[in-house]
Amino acid sequence: MSDTADSLQGLRQRLAEFAAARDWDQFHSPKNLSMALIAEAAELIEHFQWLSEAQSQSLPPDKINKVRLELADILIYLIRIADKLGVDLAQAAWEKIEMNEQRYPANKVRGDARRASEYD
Amino acid sequence: MSDTADSLQGLRQRLAEFAAARDWDQFHSPKNLSMALIAEAAELIEHFQWLSEAQSQSLPPDKINKVRLELADILIYLIRIADKLGVDLAQAAWEKIEMNEQRYPANKVRGDARRASEYD
Amino acid sequence: MSDTADSLQGLRQRLAEFAAARDWDQFHSPKNLSMALIAEAAELIEHFQWLSEAQSQSLPPDKINKVRLELADILIYLIRIADKLGVDLAQAAWEKIEMNEQRYPANKVRGDARRASEYD
Amino acid sequence: MSDTADSLQGLRQRLAEFAAARDWDQFHSPKNLSMALIAEAAELIEHFQWLSEAQSQSLPPDKINKVRLELADILIYLIRIADKLGVDLAQAAWEKIEMNEQRYPANKVRGDARRASEYD
Repeated sequence: MSDTADSLQGLRQRLAEFAAARDWDQFHSPKNLSMALIAEAAELIEHFQWLSEAQSQSLPPDKINKVRLELADILIYLIRIADKLGVDLAQAAWEKIEMNEQRYPANKVRGDARRASEYD
Repeated sequence: MSDTADSLQGLRQRLAEFAAARDWDQFHSPKNLSMALIAEAAELIEHFQWLSEAQSQSLPPDKINKVRLELADILIYLIRIADKLGVDLAQAAWEKIEMNEQRYPANKVRGDARRASEYD
Repeated sequence: MSDTADSLQGLRQRLAEFAAARDWDQFHSPKNLSMALIAEAAELIEHFQWLSEAQSQSLPPDKINKVRLELADILIYLIRIADKLGVDLAQAAWEKIEMNEQRYPANKVRGDARRASEYD
Repeated sequence: MSDTADSLQGLRQRLAEFAAARDWDQFHSPKNLSMALIAEAAELIEHFQWLSEAQSQSLPPDKINKVRLELADILIYLIRIADKLGVDLAQAAWEKIEMNEQRYPANKVRGDARRASEYD
């Protein structure tokens, strides 16, 4: 994949045009978009709710493809909200990873996700 | 921002290393990660639930910064799930945008988000 | 409605029988049920995401009926989780209301939902 | 517990008074309440996201108590939304259970939660 195709800025630009062409910016308040985003996150949840963890790790191909498009929907709304709020999403993620690096020192939380969530 | 910093692949790689260093892959089943993702999406919701749409569009700077880090958390878990399932997130998003382009023709859904959601 | 029909215990008993008749208790871990519950909560969200607050307050009858059944789904899963965990849901709600009474004194938070959420 | 204490109508009435005393009805549009509800559902999710299903079935007492109050929060917002929309929650649940009884015949879906969700 070219650098452009993998870039969040490229998607941000494309999605802004998509909304503008449909005059949908009027609906795309951060409040509304946060609702659309969580609704998509829940469609992801639905794929996994009755599966065991092991089953969720080895989905059949047709299911993978459905899940893949749910992940796309989440990313799409996430990029839209960030754009509406003037947030650089990739920059924010890199910054948050640095914060997590400090907050969850590898030697203290190794093998214990619950300990990590207690720090939250 | 350099192309690398804005790239989803760069973040994917960094997050895989982060989890490996903590031996957290054992907790990172798609099922569990979908739960972590929706929990982060809900933290975003909490920022907006008592605000009007207009207020959600003009957040004060300290609030923007908090929201920014929630958006980062969502992206982080989204990238992790995609990685665990072997999904190329950017490619999926581009494909979904093409599907949406067909599904919601600009001249049919202009100015009507509800009509769009009826097609879902 | 009779006292029984309005009672949470009556629903709890009915739902336990429903699951037992289908041998579904094996899927009804609190973890899985929490996922099913949030998926239903998201279906509720979807009805409102592109509406204004005012529109959400005056839904047309066919929409009310759909929303009504989403609310039922949420209650059903909520009762199931409480049952599985041995929690008396009504008792917990009364207790939480007492806690909220202390936490959000009427004279301090009147007319300000945001102040309330800051206390959370 | 007395019939009244276990009744949804009793809680509905109490919660309406609670909101009125704080002048919070202005914030309690169905749209906003659906956001508050899903945020509480996500707090439930957070308790379970890194636990195995088995662990979620045998929570330690201090954790049960926290989860218990999350369940209460969900019920509280659920009752509020129903009240705002003029929906009788218990009646809706009984009706939905009858629908599910038809939709998921015990002899067809026994032991198979995934089959059930395919019918959704």
